Amino acid sequence: MSSRAERLAHNFTDGVDAIVVMNASEPFLDTTFWYLTGSSSGTFEGSRAIVTSDGSLHTFVSILEEETAKSANGEVHVYNTDADRKQQMQEILKGCKKIGVNYSSTAYGSVEWMKSFLDVDVEIVDATKIISDTIAVKDEKEIELIAKACKITSTVAEELPDMIYEGATERDVASEMGIRMLRLGGTGLAFDTIAAFGAHSSEPHYSPADYELKNGDAALFDFGSKYGRYCSDLTRTIFLGEPEPILKRAYEVVRQAQIAGLAEMRDGADASAPDLAARKVIENSEFKGRFIHSFGHGIGMNIHEAIYVSPKSQQKLRAGNVVSAEPGVYIPGIGGVRIEDTVLITEDGCRLLTDYDHSFTVV
Amino acid sequence: MSSRAERLAHNFTDGVDAIVVMNASEPFLDTTFWYLTGSSSGTFEGSRAIVTSDGSLHTFVSILEEETAKSANGEVHVYNTDADRKQQMQEILKGCKKIGVNYSSTAYGSVEWMKSFLDVDVEIVDATKIISDTIAVKDEKEIELIAKACKITSTVAEELPDMIYEGATERDVASEMGIRMLRLGGTGLAFDTIAAFGAHSSEPHYSPADYELKNGDAALFDFGSKYGRYCSDLTRTIFLGEPEPILKRAYEVVRQAQIAGLAEMRDGADASAPDLAARKVIENSEFKGRFIHSFGHGIGMNIHEAIYVSPKSQQKLRAGNVVSAEPGVYIPGIGGVRIEDTVLITEDGCRLLTDYDHSFTVV
Repeated sequence: MSSRAERLAHNFTDGVDAIVVMNASEPFLDTTFWYLTGSSSGTFEGSRAIVTSDGSLHTFVSILEEETAKSANGEVHVYNTDADRKQQMQEILKGCKKIGVNYSSTAYGSVEWMKSFLDVDVEIVDATKIISDTIAVKDEKEIELIAKACKITSTVAEELPDMIYEGATERDVASEMGIRMLRLGGTGLAFDTIAAFGAHSSEPHYSPADYELKNGDAALFDFGSKYGRYCSDLTRTIFLGEPEPILKRAYEVVRQAQIAGLAEMRDGADASAPDLAARKVIENSEFKGRFIHSFGHGIGMNIHEAIYVSPKSQQKLRAGNVVSAEPGVYIPGIGGVRIEDTVLITEDGCRLLTDYDHSFTVV
Repeated sequence: MSSRAERLAHNFTDGVDAIVVMNASEPFLDTTFWYLTGSSSGTFEGSRAIVTSDGSLHTFVSILEEETAKSANGEVHVYNTDADRKQQMQEILKGCKKIGVNYSSTAYGSVEWMKSFLDVDVEIVDATKIISDTIAVKDEKEIELIAKACKITSTVAEELPDMIYEGATERDVASEMGIRMLRLGGTGLAFDTIAAFGAHSSEPHYSPADYELKNGDAALFDFGSKYGRYCSDLTRTIFLGEPEPILKRAYEVVRQAQIAGLAEMRDGADASAPDLAARKVIENSEFKGRFIHSFGHGIGMNIHEAIYVSPKSQQKLRAGNVVSAEPGVYIPGIGGVRIEDTVLITEDGCRLLTDYDHSFTVV
């Protein structure tokens, strides 16, 4: 089994000689640094990593994290001053004519900083695609960590019907969900938990507030635990008392849409296919126009990464990809329904890593 | 009281006509967006904000977060496509000759994207300092939120002696600390909790693992709750059973170093002064050379922001700044001691927002 740095180098295209990963300050830290080093630890603000075309990995860290870096992959260069760091990187990059940087996850200032000590004829190019293509295919260890994160999240999803009651605030339930994920061994939250009750559930990115759950309300929960730096993502929508019939119909349409999308997920499929299949189900229903986001996104150390399962996606799904499957229908003023799983793409289909009761649930 | 956008515009220097804030994808989201809009909600991936020299605020958000954006500050522009977003921004930026961007918190690709639709003679400049100077001075509402986050963190700090026992793993205690912070009303963790036992406590950025606490070990905890998007930061070092005498001496030196540093904190002081004062105490002790990081950093929506309380800092402290005060001594193979508080700078001194027993504590 080749190292992650070797796998990245294997994907180098367009004559790229090296890829440079640069961390700014929290939260502008590039998870690719942890992917390559395999470190489970450290903040690594200001640290850099270089992968050269032969698959070598070099890391550049301050004395503050020397010990942590040495327990991880790569040849460690320890710097005391910025001048050290520049000189060390210059040496490794000597002779490189084309250097790739992830334009989406590198601060503008870091790239300008690197330009300041590189020869003027060195070309900086966007390596987002090379990096995305590499990190999108999870290895066994990564799948194991994501599966553990999903297991924790699923357990809390199963407990949700017992956690809601008339008068419960969104904030209270969200907080209790976080507590339970940590208690089950989660190493953090993958993102701020969404708990949206009643009409608020029609806002896909709503943050929990003081609204109190009422009889007939939808209760939408979008949440995920982390485990060993990896994320999980799950949405479950349940109801306190029988809701308006339109919400029950919406639930069934969203459920069918998810089934239709999942049926299109397999190695080699267009990443747009699951979205288009799910969208067709919703567009052919009374909820035409109410599925206002994409069907899914890649999941890894970032909650959104590498893969877009959207109508216009030009990507292909590959075995080892981990993506969300999350159709939804949003009816302003009334409520929304979203059903979401974290899914592993396999050779001949897909496997749900999350596991909870998907049926229409009235508490 | 002027709006935050007005305060930012008031700090414009060097002929800057507008400042543009651009969010990439999670985690590359710029907290300045939430600072300006005052939104407590939303993910706002891909969203932008513009502040013009008259203090107007414009936000550009996808239809997905239209509702959330409308409940916050600023004139909201809703886009469906990237072309929409470009056209809307072009209109607001018409006539601007010099545009400021935070080079440290904006993705390289976002700046390149903006350049693609601006006239070639428009100059893009680094607005990091303008933004830092503005966000560094917290308003009343911000101080209230940070103080609440500090209160939650302090409560858990007080409980630490009851939470450790022989055989406890770092991971278990870190997890329990997270649970308690959430239970006390924390809206998340400000950063991954550091729980470092025994020799591990000599690594300043260690991540908790399976090491089991032994008699005589130092137990160093560096942690913080979030409250309403704002962070707190606290480190407490305690001991299970009487430690080696060198650790007890280190504790007293670090404690004196913190007192010396705090005495230098006030409106108008050099930001280097507290570091130098604390460092002098350590350098004059047997622990010379063992304080291997800065005395402090600004704290706000980011755990590290705006202010560097370091030996070479050229900044001034201002009333309303919130910074950490965290001297430490690290003895490889034996252990480390760090004592940290979150501190508000006032006109004539400083006020600790965190509150726990700072005395040498053996459990």
